[in-house]
Parts: sequence; C-alpha cells; structure tokens
Amino acid sequence: MPRLAYLGPEGTFTEEALRLLDPNAERLPRATVSAALTAARTGDADGAVVPLENSIEGAITTTLDEFAWGEPLLITAELLLPVQFSLLARPGTEIPHIKRVYTHPAAITQCRAFISRELPDAVVVSAPSTAAAAQEVSLPGSPYDAAIAARIAGEHYGLVELAGGIGDRSDTVTRFVKVSRPGPLPAPTGSDRTTLVVFLTDDHPGALLEMLTEFSVRGVNLTRIESRPTGDGIGRYFFHFDFEGHVADARVGEALAGLHRICGEVRFMGSYPRADGVAPQIKRGTADAEFAEAGDWLDRIRTGHV
Amino acid sequence: MPRLAYLGPEGTFTEEALRLLDPNAERLPRATVSAALTAARTGDADGAVVPLENSIEGAITTTLDEFAWGEPLLITAELLLPVQFSLLARPGTEIPHIKRVYTHPAAITQCRAFISRELPDAVVVSAPSTAAAAQEVSLPGSPYDAAIAARIAGEHYGLVELAGGIGDRSDTVTRFVKVSRPGPLPAPTGSDRTTLVVFLTDDHPGALLEMLTEFSVRGVNLTRIESRPTGDGIGRYFFHFDFEGHVADARVGEALAGLHRICGEVRFMGSYPRADGVAPQIKRGTADAEFAEAGDWLDRIRTGHV
Amino acid sequence: MPRLAYLGPEGTFTEEALRLLDPNAERLPRATVSAALTAARTGDADGAVVPLENSIEGAITTTLDEFAWGEPLLITAELLLPVQFSLLARPGTEIPHIKRVYTHPAAITQCRAFISRELPDAVVVSAPSTAAAAQEVSLPGSPYDAAIAARIAGEHYGLVELAGGIGDRSDTVTRFVKVSRPGPLPAPTGSDRTTLVVFLTDDHPGALLEMLTEFSVRGVNLTRIESRPTGDGIGRYFFHFDFEGHVADARVGEALAGLHRICGEVRFMGSYPRADGVAPQIKRGTADAEFAEAGDWLDRIRTGHV
Amino acid sequence: MPRLAYLGPEGTFTEEALRLLDPNAERLPRATVSAALTAARTGDADGAVVPLENSIEGAITTTLDEFAWGEPLLITAELLLPVQFSLLARPGTEIPHIKRVYTHPAAITQCRAFISRELPDAVVVSAPSTAAAAQEVSLPGSPYDAAIAARIAGEHYGLVELAGGIGDRSDTVTRFVKVSRPGPLPAPTGSDRTTLVVFLTDDHPGALLEMLTEFSVRGVNLTRIESRPTGDGIGRYFFHFDFEGHVADARVGEALAGLHRICGEVRFMGSYPRADGVAPQIKRGTADAEFAEAGDWLDRIRTGHV
Repeated sequence: MPRLAYLGPEGTFTEEALRLLDPNAERLPRATVSAALTAARTGDADGAVVPLENSIEGAITTTLDEFAWGEPLLITAELLLPVQFSLLARPGTEIPHIKRVYTHPAAITQCRAFISRELPDAVVVSAPSTAAAAQEVSLPGSPYDAAIAARIAGEHYGLVELAGGIGDRSDTVTRFVKVSRPGPLPAPTGSDRTTLVVFLTDDHPGALLEMLTEFSVRGVNLTRIESRPTGDGIGRYFFHFDFEGHVADARVGEALAGLHRICGEVRFMGSYPRADGVAPQIKRGTADAEFAEAGDWLDRIRTGHV
Repeated sequence: MPRLAYLGPEGTFTEEALRLLDPNAERLPRATVSAALTAARTGDADGAVVPLENSIEGAITTTLDEFAWGEPLLITAELLLPVQFSLLARPGTEIPHIKRVYTHPAAITQCRAFISRELPDAVVVSAPSTAAAAQEVSLPGSPYDAAIAARIAGEHYGLVELAGGIGDRSDTVTRFVKVSRPGPLPAPTGSDRTTLVVFLTDDHPGALLEMLTEFSVRGVNLTRIESRPTGDGIGRYFFHFDFEGHVADARVGEALAGLHRICGEVRFMGSYPRADGVAPQIKRGTADAEFAEAGDWLDRIRTGHV
Repeated sequence: MPRLAYLGPEGTFTEEALRLLDPNAERLPRATVSAALTAARTGDADGAVVPLENSIEGAITTTLDEFAWGEPLLITAELLLPVQFSLLARPGTEIPHIKRVYTHPAAITQCRAFISRELPDAVVVSAPSTAAAAQEVSLPGSPYDAAIAARIAGEHYGLVELAGGIGDRSDTVTRFVKVSRPGPLPAPTGSDRTTLVVFLTDDHPGALLEMLTEFSVRGVNLTRIESRPTGDGIGRYFFHFDFEGHVADARVGEALAGLHRICGEVRFMGSYPRADGVAPQIKRGTADAEFAEAGDWLDRIRTGHV
Repeated sequence: MPRLAYLGPEGTFTEEALRLLDPNAERLPRATVSAALTAARTGDADGAVVPLENSIEGAITTTLDEFAWGEPLLITAELLLPVQFSLLARPGTEIPHIKRVYTHPAAITQCRAFISRELPDAVVVSAPSTAAAAQEVSLPGSPYDAAIAARIAGEHYGLVELAGGIGDRSDTVTRFVKVSRPGPLPAPTGSDRTTLVVFLTDDHPGALLEMLTEFSVRGVNLTRIESRPTGDGIGRYFFHFDFEGHVADARVGEALAGLHRICGEVRFMGSYPRADGVAPQIKRGTADAEFAEAGDWLDRIRTGHV
C-alpha cells in the first residue's frame, strides 16, 4: 500500500484527487505543496499528489517552481477534477446569520456571483486553503461563521452544507498530478503527455521560437507553456512545457534531444497517460514506423548502399 | 493633480511605486488590484498603479486577468522597484518575544532563510498583503507579534523596524505599471515596450509558433510571454506578450496588424518607456527608414515604375 | 498594331506563342532571346515574346539571366503552349533515306525514343533552334536530310511532315511570356502570378529560409524558384521566384516590401494573369479585406482608441 | 589504374578536370554527359567525370537530370577548375582572316567582349562542345576558320593559339564531379559537402520551407539549391541540394532522415571533400559530441534516470 503525501489538511480537493488516483494509498496530509513534495523527495512518502493548474486560476506557481528546483521528481499520472464549491457552516447556522466567511482567495474569485447575491454584507477573509478554512470554522469559538470549501471538507470537519455548487461556473476543473522519485516510466498508452522544464543558457532574441521549432519540426504539439522567473531579475524566465506524446515515441525523443542540445538545462518531468484520453494527431512523416524506416535508410546510405 | 488608485492600504510596495511614478498624484488606496483598476475604469480615479510581475514570484495573475477582461485600459508607464522586506513590530517588542508573524505568502517565500534562522519557533500566518499585515499588527490586542512588510508600512502604522533587508535575495524587484483609460499614447522614446493580450480563434497546433513568427519576421523581440487560462477548461489559454518597441514603430505596427489578422482578438495594452532604458536591437531591414523606403518602392512598382 | 520581337526565325514555337498571345501584332523575328529582349528594351519593338521554361527542359536560362541584368522589363502575359514535334524534310524525302538530322538539343532529348526506333542509324546534329534547323534543311544543298521542329516551321520553309507528335511525351508544355518596357500593370483578375528576381546583400546561412518566410508569413505561395549564378564564383547565386497573386494584393505587396527590406536588390518582373486560371488559396487572415481591417485597427490603437 | 569516362572529345575542360582529379586514370572520352554516366553505370568504366555547374552559365542541367533518374551514382570528389578560353586556328591563320568562328554557346556568352572588339565582322556558330569545335576546325576543308576552346584542345588537335584568356571575366570557374557506382563513401575530412536529389510526394504550399527547416533546425547550411522539372507539367519540380558536412556527421544524418520522412523520395548523391577546403560553421548544439551527449541523456531519461 503506497504512502502518498498531499496538500492537506484532510478535506482538500487534493485529497479527493488522491482518492481517485490511488484509492488504496495511505494518505499523508501536508500543510503546503512544498511539504508534500519534500515528503516524496526524502522518502517520508512514496510519492505525492499536488495541484498543477486550474481552469480559472491558471498554474499553481508553487508547484511549477518546486518541480523546477531541488531533487528531480517524475509525474506518473494526472487527473482532471471538477471543482465544486459548497458553503459550509457549523450545525445550526443559517445563511442570514453569516457575517464572516473564511476561504481561499481562489474560491473568493470563483464564487463571486454567489457571494454578491447571497452574502452581500458578509466580510470574506482569505485562508491558506479551502480545507483549512473549513477546519478553522469547525472550531468552537472561531471568529468565522462559514467556510467555502469542497463538500468533502465539510464531512471531515463536521460542517453542514448550506449551499452546494456555488461557483460562478459549473465547469471549473483542476488538474492534479501524482509524482514520485525517479524510476521506470509509465508505459506508452497511445494517449500520453510529457512535461518538461527548460532553462536557457543565454536569453537571446528568438530563443523561444527556436525551442518551439524543435517541437514543430518533429510534429510534436504543445498543450501548455508557462514562463516562470528564474529569480535573477525581471526579464529572465524559464519555461514549463506540456506536449502530446511519450518520451518513448521517436518524434518526442528526438525533439527532447534537440532541446537538450540547444538549451542550458532540460529537466524531464515525466511521460504519463493523459487524463482526457485524447490521442495525438500524428503528422505525416513523424510516426514511429517512419522514424524507424528513415533510420534504416540512413544506415544504408552511410555505408554507400544507395 | 491626477488622482491615482493603487493596491493599498497605505504602506504597500505599490504605494511606494506610485510615489516614484507620480510624486504629485493624489493617492487612492484600494483593497485589491481589481478594485484599484475598477476605480480607473469607472472614473473614480484618473488611473491606477498595480504590480504586474515580481522577479521571484512571477506574474501577478490578478493583474494579467483584469487587463484581459472588462473595459480596456492602457499602460502609460512602468517602474522596477527593488523589494526590501523589514521585520516590523509594536514598540517594545523584541525578536525573542515573537511567537506569531503575519505577512503575505510571497514574503514568507522570499524571507525563508531569515525566518528559519532568526524565528525558528514562530508561527507564520498568511495575510492578504504585507501592508495589511502591518496594519493588523499595529492594532492593540492583535494576535500577531510582528509583520514582515515594507519599511514604509512600518512608518504608516507606527511600527518599529526590528530588522531590515531580510529577504533571501537582495536583488528582488517588482515591476509596477500605471494604467489609465484609453487616450493618447506616450510618445516613442527609442527605448519603449509594448504589451498585448492575445486570444486565439481556434487553438490549433502551431498557433503559438505562428504568433511568434509574426514578431520575428519583423525583427520584434519578445521580453515576456505569459499564458493564462481562458476559463473554458484545461488546455485553453490566452497570452500576454511584452516586446521591444513602440506601436508607432513601423516594425511593431506591422507585427501587430499581422497578429490581429491571424488571431481571434488582440487587445492592445499600451506602448510606454522602458524603465530600464534599454534600447532595442534593430535587425537589418526593420528600421523605420527601411520600412518607409520599402513602402515607396512598393508604390512605385505597383504603378509600373520599376 | 503592336510590334513584338520574338525568338525567330519564323516557324519557332515562340512565333506560335506570339500568334496566340497577340494575333494582331506585327511580328519581328530575332535570332536569339537576347536580341528579342534588346529590341523591346531599345524601342525597336513594343515588346517581346520569349520562352521562360519548359516542362521537360526546365528554365530557359538565357531568359532568366536577361531578365536579371540590363534595363528592366515587365512581364504582362504568359502562355502555356503544348509542344508537338514533327519530322520535316524536303519534298520527296522518305524516312529510310534520312542519314543526317538537324534540330535543337532540347528536341533531341525529347524525341529520344522516336529517334532510336525510327532513325537508329541517323546522325543527329545540334542546331541553334528548331526553326533554324528547318530553315537550314529547306536550303538546296543542305548537308541535312531532315529537321525536327514545330509543324509551323515546316509550313514556313516548305517542308513536308514525315511524322508528327514524335515527342516521347505527349504532354510537354513550354511557358512563354510577353514583356514590355515598364508601364501600367495588367489589372488583377483574381488568378494572377507575380515574378521577382532577388539578389542577396550577403549570402549568409539561412538567407533563403528568411526569404521564404517573408512569403509564407503572409500566406503567399511560391510556384517556382530558380537559382542562377551571379558570376562571382561558384556558390554565389541570385533567385527567380514566381508566386500566386498580384502586387496589388495586400499580402503580396507586404511580402515584396519585406523582401525589399532584407535583400540586396529585388527586381519586380510583373504581375499578370495566370495562363492556367488557377485561383490562389487565400489563407485565413491574408485576404485584402483582412489587411484593410487590420490597418484600420492599427490606426485606431496608434491614437489610443483601443 | 581506374578507367574513367568523361565528357569528350579529348581536349575538353572535363578532360583537364579528370587529369587533375585522377592523374593516373585511363581516360575514356564520351560524346555526351549522358554517355559518360552510362559508361559508369554499366561498368564500361569505373566511374566518370562530368561538369556540374559553371560560375557564369549555372547548372549543367543534363548532369542534374542524369543524377536524378536511372541507376544511382555517388559523387566521390569535386574540383573547381578555372576556365580560360583561347582563340585557336589552323597554323597559318591570322586574326584578320577569320570570318567564321565555331564554339559552344557558353563560350560565345563568356567571350562576348573579345568577339565584339577583335572579331566584329565574324559569324559565330554554335558547336556542341568547345572541344568538338576545335576538332572540327582542325579538319582540312572545315568551313570554320577558328574555334574558341581550352588551350588543351588546341594541343590535342594541332591548332595554334592566336589569343589566350579571352573570356570577359578572368575568374570563371567550372565545378566538376567524379562519380562512381555505389560503394564505401569517402571518409569525413572536416570540410565536406553532401549532395541530394529530393522529390516531393505532394507539392503543397510550404513544402520547400519545410525542407529547408529540416536543414536549419540541425544547423546544416545549404550551399546550392536547384529546381528541375519532373516532366509532369509546368509547376512540378524536384530539387538538388548541396550542403555543408558529411552524412557521417550527426547533424547531417538527422537532417537527411528528417527529409526522408517528409518527402516522397530522397536520393543521396554522396558526401565528399570540398574542393575549396572551407570548414563548416558548427552552430551551438549541433556538433557530433553534442548529439552524442544528448543521445545519452535521452537514453537515461527514457529509463527514468533523470
């Protein structure tokens, strides 16, 4: 039974993701993304589950930065989790009584319409996570009357759901990934994704175009690009890339080797099955069989067998 | 005397930036970036000053998203502000007494070494802004013993600086921008930057490469790219671009028109002097005079005067 | 009635092309392509008709080089002429009698199968043109027994057609162009072609790729590229380009101006209706209306009307 | 002692090239480039020497087409031969006596100034080769008074050199290549050239740009591109490419395999030492050691050793 750290406390969306990714795992809540990943890195856990991006909030920058620095980790699975917010309170509380609401800033953003309409006079205070907000509200003597969090958090902390599905959009999704220390990769499935972190040696004009050309010339389609500061001043960035395919695919392997040759550092973050099951578009001339045939041809002409 | 909204309360780094950008402005603190920009949009203020990115934390995503949606605004100036953190407390407090520290999460990240070394046993709690933390600490009966914030916040709220320059890095910088409702652009200075928000009509493979090619073929160098979710599900993004030059420059104008032709929506966010005074590298064939000469030549050949 | 020089003597395929291009023209035969173009340049003729390329032989390099150097000329029309070869002889000659055949080297190449099969023992001698061969054969006392030439040449010079359609391929085509001194261009028809000659300032690696990118980024499709030596040593070339569209088209105009900016010299050789009537594929974002709309948008944002 | 066919008769510039390329070879003159290459293909000769391009005349299209069709051949060496024309006549002839000159059309073009100045009234007639012209002039009873050809041709055919170095330019050069049936390639020397013939599967817009990108992304610099008609109508071409480097070089091999994957047919024509001894510019990230290192890295990450 694997032991997996996650962004806790109990009741977070991340816990929900972990349960779906690995129902049998022992769950080790940690206070922060960094702490969860540290547990995976040090061996306190066999791996970790953390959020990577949200369809409203965008990238979870702590996760991006943790992946880029420190000991390497590999993504072995991803999950797309619909995010549904609930208004949670101690038993006996009713909506008109609510004067102070506690929740994560992302939830404030995503439940703006509900808050304006149903809680126009309430003060809304930022919490470190939605589950932490629920935990705080569950304490007797809490200064807060309600939390906005996942329903699962209410169950954990003994809160009542006063309203469910209160997000402005019903289709909000968070993408979670499971990581572990380096080891054998998940086998290719035909619907895979690969994640990289790339640092530039020198930040010359056109460097990004050169990187994208390494992908496009081998028919590898990007699905996400994020820039993050290196810390060395405004204007210096490194990049996260997600793209279609598995490093075992010939076209992906050659593109990665090409990036490795022209960039300062390429950190491979894993190849793993896509949660959405979408198969890649294989451009003419970039299938594995075509790479193999071209390799055979090259071997022949190098020995003069034209 | 212009009236400028900013991310308050008094004592934020944003206030410091505003004072440097426009010493004579009347300053209107607002609780959030959104509120400051709303003030500028509605006419409650003549403009606003907000943070755009930090050399450690990266983009201020609220600012990016506020720029992309809602009524258009134009950036008219930028400022690079070195960020120095101070440990601030009520008079009489000494470091050994500090059990609970209140500050913004970015400051926690950036002062990690100082906290570990000097405050190993303190609990550090997240605040909505560093100035809000200082304000809270200044209240009699606050549960917090100290705040980490800008020195200016201590002055505002009557706190004592127990330690200064406590960030892990001494070279952290935040980039602020001044925005106003659409109107005449700042004149070109020879060292300008232009900011765009770009939405794709359809998110086909290679769309990003096509956009970058519109810039590179006219010799326009990118200085920043950020992707942000459109809200329509994981995998759907829009882009922020910063690049060298002024929209009045021929090469920049043609590149923008090119993007406008191939993209769903291009929102022009302004051309304004660069805070670092760096002049662009003008690639051969892309100077204004060369565009003008080529235009004359084209007029001639179109009338058969070859 | 225009006076048009052409590659003579009477009876050449070029004369046939001229008759089709301009039935009412006065025809001025000249001994060489150079002489025909010189007549057009000096005003001895109002224009000239010359071959540009053949579907078997390729480019007529004399034409390419004449276009590139000397006084400018403009192509105003093109014609695709199926090329049918005939075996022509003085009245009374029969195939078994033929010992010596006279014709242009291109005809030797293109009638190889007929010659091997029907004239296995004949000596085949190179002539400056197929019509010159017919003219020579028509002379009493000619050392040659037969010519391979256009049927029209036989009619001119009183020869009998012993065999017709003797080319190895029945679909051989020669492309002819009509040129004149610079003047108003033919109006766009929706199915046009434009021809350029381009010289590089410096022959750096990637120069050709840069030129092609100027076309592709504006959605302009090449239909022909030829390299020709500049005369300054092996490895120094200039280029001929044919591409879809008319210089009056916005996308074509901008591409030409782009080439003009980055190349040493761009010689515009004309925009004229395509002989095959094929309409261009207009890539999204490159139609005239889209250029106009983008230009209006650019004007607005340059004055701050975003 | 190898037996090499060449474009004869004796006295051609090609014979001179053959003597320099392989002084000990037995020389087998053939009447045409095609015949010389046929001798190499059938085994009548061990190889052949033929002209490929001239710095004034451009490509020798017969050679290009012969390379593209029929049994494969490999280029194993190249030579750059300065071309010096002489005016040659039978002993006793003087310049004022010359009424009829016989020579190859290329020589007419290249000696235009001399002919205008020294032989203003002479008729100049086209010959199949300069050596054939000298041979003809050497015959008693020839209708021609002089030939323009290589000095070596005069020596062969017993002609006197009336004037030497009569070309308009003193720096004209012809590039010759030695070919043989497929077999082991010349070893890399650090200054090599590779030649390809490439046919497209479908002639879609952008196909040429895609081909050039396969080269540029691996830092392989083109030195020559020629388009030739496939024979299937105007607008259908195949391509000859020369570029820096040896197929044994990693960057060249990968570029060739890339072309092979996306193109209909790639015919490898050999890798051989450059006659000019110029070493390639190796772009960062494209040296053999960098390819090897990237390949090792790829092997590691594919097994999860990140």
